[in-house]
Amino acid sequence: MRRRAFLSLLGGTALAWPRTLEGLARDFQVGGDAQDEDFWSRVRGRFLIPPERIYLNNGTLGPSPEVVVEAVNEHARRVASTYPPGVDWDDLKGSVGAFIGADPEGLVFPRNTTEAMSFVAQGLDLDPGGEILTSDHEHIGGLCPWQVVCSRRELPLRVFSLPVPASTQESLLDTIMGAVSEETRVLSLSHVTFTTGTRLPLEEVAELCRERGIILVVDGAHPPGMVKLDLASWDPDFYASSPHKWLLAPQGSGLLYLGDEWRSNLWPTLASGGWDDRELGAQRFNHLGTFDESRMAGLIAAVEFLNAIGMDRVEGRVRYLRQRLEAGLRGMPGVRVVSPVEEDLATGMVSFSLDGVDSLILQRHLARSAAVRTRVISEYEYGWMRLSTHIYNLPGEVDRALELLDDVRRNGLS
Amino acid sequence: MRRRAFLSLLGGTALAWPRTLEGLARDFQVGGDAQDEDFWSRVRGRFLIPPERIYLNNGTLGPSPEVVVEAVNEHARRVASTYPPGVDWDDLKGSVGAFIGADPEGLVFPRNTTEAMSFVAQGLDLDPGGEILTSDHEHIGGLCPWQVVCSRRELPLRVFSLPVPASTQESLLDTIMGAVSEETRVLSLSHVTFTTGTRLPLEEVAELCRERGIILVVDGAHPPGMVKLDLASWDPDFYASSPHKWLLAPQGSGLLYLGDEWRSNLWPTLASGGWDDRELGAQRFNHLGTFDESRMAGLIAAVEFLNAIGMDRVEGRVRYLRQRLEAGLRGMPGVRVVSPVEEDLATGMVSFSLDGVDSLILQRHLARSAAVRTRVISEYEYGWMRLSTHIYNLPGEVDRALELLDDVRRNGLS
Repeated sequence: MRRRAFLSLLGGTALAWPRTLEGLARDFQVGGDAQDEDFWSRVRGRFLIPPERIYLNNGTLGPSPEVVVEAVNEHARRVASTYPPGVDWDDLKGSVGAFIGADPEGLVFPRNTTEAMSFVAQGLDLDPGGEILTSDHEHIGGLCPWQVVCSRRELPLRVFSLPVPASTQESLLDTIMGAVSEETRVLSLSHVTFTTGTRLPLEEVAELCRERGIILVVDGAHPPGMVKLDLASWDPDFYASSPHKWLLAPQGSGLLYLGDEWRSNLWPTLASGGWDDRELGAQRFNHLGTFDESRMAGLIAAVEFLNAIGMDRVEGRVRYLRQRLEAGLRGMPGVRVVSPVEEDLATGMVSFSLDGVDSLILQRHLARSAAVRTRVISEYEYGWMRLSTHIYNLPGEVDRALELLDDVRRNGLS
Repeated sequence: MRRRAFLSLLGGTALAWPRTLEGLARDFQVGGDAQDEDFWSRVRGRFLIPPERIYLNNGTLGPSPEVVVEAVNEHARRVASTYPPGVDWDDLKGSVGAFIGADPEGLVFPRNTTEAMSFVAQGLDLDPGGEILTSDHEHIGGLCPWQVVCSRRELPLRVFSLPVPASTQESLLDTIMGAVSEETRVLSLSHVTFTTGTRLPLEEVAELCRERGIILVVDGAHPPGMVKLDLASWDPDFYASSPHKWLLAPQGSGLLYLGDEWRSNLWPTLASGGWDDRELGAQRFNHLGTFDESRMAGLIAAVEFLNAIGMDRVEGRVRYLRQRLEAGLRGMPGVRVVSPVEEDLATGMVSFSLDGVDSLILQRHLARSAAVRTRVISEYEYGWMRLSTHIYNLPGEVDRALELLDDVRRNGLS
């Protein structure tokens, strides 16, 4: 079904790259254990990342594999030839819905998480007394949409603290639900925090919110493409994401899942034809005027790419690389890891600080001396360095980054 | 300056396509009168439109020349290689600002006119009694944003009628200003109507609105790239556009110009970091989270492409083709042209109906029998067929379309 979807979206077999995809499927048929370096070097070979580049910042933007870039380009050339293939919404939604385990009817495709979160914050009718509750680990894309709406409508926005590092799912659940008050109308939280890569137990939170009539809005920028998801099993009110991160879709690919009741009961923020036709459901929010349809071809190609590898293998490899990185960091005196120890809270992002070294200066050093790309969490003055490990990374890259850090730790920054 | 901008945006001379651009400049150095077929066939050769395709629907979407598609692809490959060139905002704004004669500081780059108009409608604080006034020739992208805001905030949205066909600038000015009431707070109008391609005298309207304290919001989807513009000379409060139409930028390229006072006094609709830092001015509205930066490379390339040809030549050629088409249509009994006769109201779009023939059926006939691509204005039940003529069109294509129409007129639809 996805293969058919894919071909129809791109206008059939006349295009070159469905053949590329068949090659991919052959390449990734056997092997793929977490330490099968032959397999994973073939995966790396599908990317355009130069060999000398150590890219440990997938948390900001995932580099698309070449097959995705080509899908976008082929689609764009067809548009420019005045034969635009258009978007087959059913196929697109079916493909992405199956990938994240969500009802395809609830899917909307904005440009990123920021826009998805804005659609939610702007579109809800909120009572004057109702409080919006969020944490002190939210990304600006998940926070600013609430700030602007609360500022304009004079609604209370309250921020509670998450523990650093987080210890267990149970204690996180207690912290989150303990912060909820009688006035809380909306709870807006990251599924995986961008600060420390901590996976919050939102599946359990969703159930408790439903019991208490609280709207749960999830900033899920990171999970799709990093871990297997089954949104239908816990059905948050809203789930916003950025497939241009771990799903490796083209830059500017966003996603928003709306729970059933919101598909007809949310105000559109960007309005075009059919905005007031509630029978259209969530599709009203895909009526955005003329947008770049080639992005949709790229998103489908990215789903196909990860499906060809298989999310079990992806999860295993991401975990292996992160564990290797984390073990190295935890073994270095002077390194303080702020990401969780517990495996069920850990993800493909590890954050830390190095005693006596400003993370921004360290970041520049790593970039200049060895083309290592990192992220510093300057937000909220945390000042941590964050490293991401995805399927294109190689153990040697992790080891090289650790060596460089160890050298700075021992000898300082020259 | 634009050349430098362009090179810096794409990361310098290592890329292939700046050399293509030098070839363009050489190709377009001499000639280019409205009937210089040698020149214009070289222009057509820069597009990916197949020879058998007669594309007369630039009003919906302009096909990008190959150089634009390549600029987008090269930029996307750099992003995927983890070396994103980023956006040099000063260069981008300088290039586009010079092209439309607007202060670069007021420029914002949404995905299209619909989004630009939504930023305006959603972002204004409007008094409960204040009326929004618009015409019965507005596109859904310019109308729906007001509908949703007026519906939600219970504000009056009033629609007045424009004459069909329009006769003179003076009478249009009288009609528009005659519709304004004491309660009118916002006047939202198309610069060129999508229905009949009529150019409204908004330069004069702007002055009168300023005197009366009315906010003028212009849906300028069509003019950039079709006619020379000098926004600074009349400085509307807001000017929204879609450079993926006549400017031939990639699908999903929008534009919004904000007058000086609005740069710090409009609420952001999609909010990210710095949304409340009014010193950032209009740049606050470019903080949209991670978006597709390759679109910006394509937009600059499109500006360079049209500059290499020159807007004087573009205007002349668009006018020549439209006049040829219009003369043919007006010479056919049974054809009723609804576009204006007066040259200063006419643009690159001509609309008409054919007695006794449903325009949608005619559209399908033209598409099937000769790959002629048209637009039917079904909106407001007008039922007109609209034909656009842009620089890639050839006189033979106009003549062929006229022949086909004449055949239908004489012999009906088989």
